Amino acid sequence: MIQRLRRTVSDLHAELVRYDLVAWTAGNVSGRIPGEDLFVIKPSGVSYDELGPENMVLCDLDGNLVEGDHSPSSDTAAHAYVYRNMPEVGGVVHTHSTYASAWAARGEAIPCVLTAMADEFGGEIPVGPFALIGDDSIGQGIVETLKGHRSPAVLMRNHGVFSIGKDPRAAVKAAVMCEDVARTVHVARQLGEPLTIGQDDIDRLYDRYQNVYGQRSPR
Amino acid sequence: MIQRLRRTVSDLHAELVRYDLVAWTAGNVSGRIPGEDLFVIKPSGVSYDELGPENMVLCDLDGNLVEGDHSPSSDTAAHAYVYRNMPEVGGVVHTHSTYASAWAARGEAIPCVLTAMADEFGGEIPVGPFALIGDDSIGQGIVETLKGHRSPAVLMRNHGVFSIGKDPRAAVKAAVMCEDVARTVHVARQLGEPLTIGQDDIDRLYDRYQNVYGQRSPR
Amino acid sequence: MIQRLRRTVSDLHAELVRYDLVAWTAGNVSGRIPGEDLFVIKPSGVSYDELGPENMVLCDLDGNLVEGDHSPSSDTAAHAYVYRNMPEVGGVVHTHSTYASAWAARGEAIPCVLTAMADEFGGEIPVGPFALIGDDSIGQGIVETLKGHRSPAVLMRNHGVFSIGKDPRAAVKAAVMCEDVARTVHVARQLGEPLTIGQDDIDRLYDRYQNVYGQRSPR
Amino acid sequence: MIQRLRRTVSDLHAELVRYDLVAWTAGNVSGRIPGEDLFVIKPSGVSYDELGPENMVLCDLDGNLVEGDHSPSSDTAAHAYVYRNMPEVGGVVHTHSTYASAWAARGEAIPCVLTAMADEFGGEIPVGPFALIGDDSIGQGIVETLKGHRSPAVLMRNHGVFSIGKDPRAAVKAAVMCEDVARTVHVARQLGEPLTIGQDDIDRLYDRYQNVYGQRSPR
Repeated sequence: MIQRLRRTVSDLHAELVRYDLVAWTAGNVSGRIPGEDLFVIKPSGVSYDELGPENMVLCDLDGNLVEGDHSPSSDTAAHAYVYRNMPEVGGVVHTHSTYASAWAARGEAIPCVLTAMADEFGGEIPVGPFALIGDDSIGQGIVETLKGHRSPAVLMRNHGVFSIGKDPRAAVKAAVMCEDVARTVHVARQLGEPLTIGQDDIDRLYDRYQNVYGQRSPR
Repeated sequence: MIQRLRRTVSDLHAELVRYDLVAWTAGNVSGRIPGEDLFVIKPSGVSYDELGPENMVLCDLDGNLVEGDHSPSSDTAAHAYVYRNMPEVGGVVHTHSTYASAWAARGEAIPCVLTAMADEFGGEIPVGPFALIGDDSIGQGIVETLKGHRSPAVLMRNHGVFSIGKDPRAAVKAAVMCEDVARTVHVARQLGEPLTIGQDDIDRLYDRYQNVYGQRSPR
Repeated sequence: MIQRLRRTVSDLHAELVRYDLVAWTAGNVSGRIPGEDLFVIKPSGVSYDELGPENMVLCDLDGNLVEGDHSPSSDTAAHAYVYRNMPEVGGVVHTHSTYASAWAARGEAIPCVLTAMADEFGGEIPVGPFALIGDDSIGQGIVETLKGHRSPAVLMRNHGVFSIGKDPRAAVKAAVMCEDVARTVHVARQLGEPLTIGQDDIDRLYDRYQNVYGQRSPR
Repeated sequence: MIQRLRRTVSDLHAELVRYDLVAWTAGNVSGRIPGEDLFVIKPSGVSYDELGPENMVLCDLDGNLVEGDHSPSSDTAAHAYVYRNMPEVGGVVHTHSTYASAWAARGEAIPCVLTAMADEFGGEIPVGPFALIGDDSIGQGIVETLKGHRSPAVLMRNHGVFSIGKDPRAAVKAAVMCEDVARTVHVARQLGEPLTIGQDDIDRLYDRYQNVYGQRSPR
């Protein structure tokens, strides 16, 4: 199980590259070992070309290194805090993707003016506080913003995106969709105000997408 | 014939990826079986890397699954409605491509200020109504907007693009060109007003392109 | 010689794709056969993946097909007019590249506010007239604008770019650099006015680049 | 050692291509031979596809060719001036990357409104003077701007970016991150004013990133 998750987490970084969410080494994916107080995360400062299952790092929920030859990502404390405080979360992703980070730099939530955004985020994508790296500040900001919120992504002020999911793949999907809608709503607003979608329509879209979309059997 | 169309429709999804029209699994192509009340469409929620002729789904014109191991695309009802009501249509494409969706978010038609747009669309690219997924609303909005219109693409309000063609390849071309002109006209308008093209010039360009362009023999 | 030029012209289309200058089949390269009243050009409506030396088309300087199984590009008359009237030109390229076409849609020349633009274009990139396809109007507009101008590229109003060079590779380079500076100057102007470069500095940069840059021996 | 550096410098050009920092041949990397008054640099006007260890050029710190069959980059004098005057520098990169060059065209420094920018640049990315190619003007402008500044990158007015590092890889990283933050801050400012980050927070982020980030053992 750990070995499989090492490969899954390692491979998912290729999606961050494919969708242009990361430059150099600035972005990371982690995944919780189901049923254990452990998670797998990217090593710090290693380029995406050099990632493989063997250099992924295993940490406990306090962010301490349990197994691995490399130091874990410098964002490990934030991932660990999320896993400690949101037991339903099985995957966490962090990026500085361009359009989402631009909204974050202004401290502005992304308004829900696209049906795809209603589907995936169930409303706006919220802004979390400004927080320095080095202690639990970032993790606390993520959890306080996302607890009880439909959105699986938060724009951390002047920083970037953290996204969560039931597993690492779902968290990566949320990171990809977050940048996609951040870009489209940005472009829309450059030439005027987007039309609003009524809250009841947002609710209907969200409910349907969460319960009907995709293949019924687990994949 | 069905087998060949399965391959054609499967392969054409690669063009959506190549031209950056889709993120994750959000976009689909379908093609009508010539002479039969059937069409082939993408399975729901399956990633573009995993598509192949074998997992395409065969549906009837009410959108019911006829053959296939996967659920059809969640947009199947809209595709089916188009095939039922526009017998000349042999292919349908749906995307949330960035610039076209930005025009759709503002509910603004794209004005015809490029000769390439006159060639392919014969005038503006129109906006269709806001419609929820789940019944025939989206299909009706597409057909009401495109019937009798030169444009093979419609911007569905707060949603994205649907495009049509005599076959799936033509519908994909329309989706690609729609995003291309949506982007260029957006960029032009960011720094001022584009110059207009006279209606008679638009008519001459459209007529010539539809009748002269390309290779004379069928390919 | 003809065989080698077929390959060169065919291969150079890959640069249009690599630099994102073209969507679907909308863009073409041609090259003059040195010492003969003939040129090689892309076939009409054929996708870039399917191009090879064998399907390039050979035309005379009136744009008539001399050799080839395909119809020549629908822009052949414009290429032919340039070759007839600018004997120093050995290559012509046409694209609808996004940022250059946006300047063309507003009918605005691109001001020379980058040293790279002084190097390659020796000043602004000028705008040519609005002209319909089908006779010599486009060719005349290109030649009237570029004759006696330093710029190897012209923005045809509401249309796109034509670029020229001593050979097809130089014309492709001009098309690539035209889009590159069109984009950078556009982005600069989005947030204010770019600083100007004095005419004497532009002259010095242009002179040096045309006479010193690159490898001294012919390549 | 020289042979290894030839390969390193040659290979690093692929990162400029991968991150879309260069068009055609407009951008170059160099690396100092540790302990010697020599550096390796790209040949002038050679395309990135054709680069290899064998066609890299070896120069002395006055920019004279020491070994190589090709002329060195036309920017060699600027690289040489930096190596002569900043002994701590082991790598230099020059690009005309789009967003950074747009800030340079307006002569505006990029304000530090992203934590990633505080990490890598320790504050704003400064603007250097307008300078013509052909003597030491560009080199002087780079050194005067970067000496005593935290930023490893400078926006040369109306021109582009020069970045430095302890080795060529670090200089390439600075060039990549410079374009990344230039783009994000540009996008942020298109729709309002980014929020500021306090100087003490910038200092803390910079200090931590320079001293803690990455793997502790040399790689």
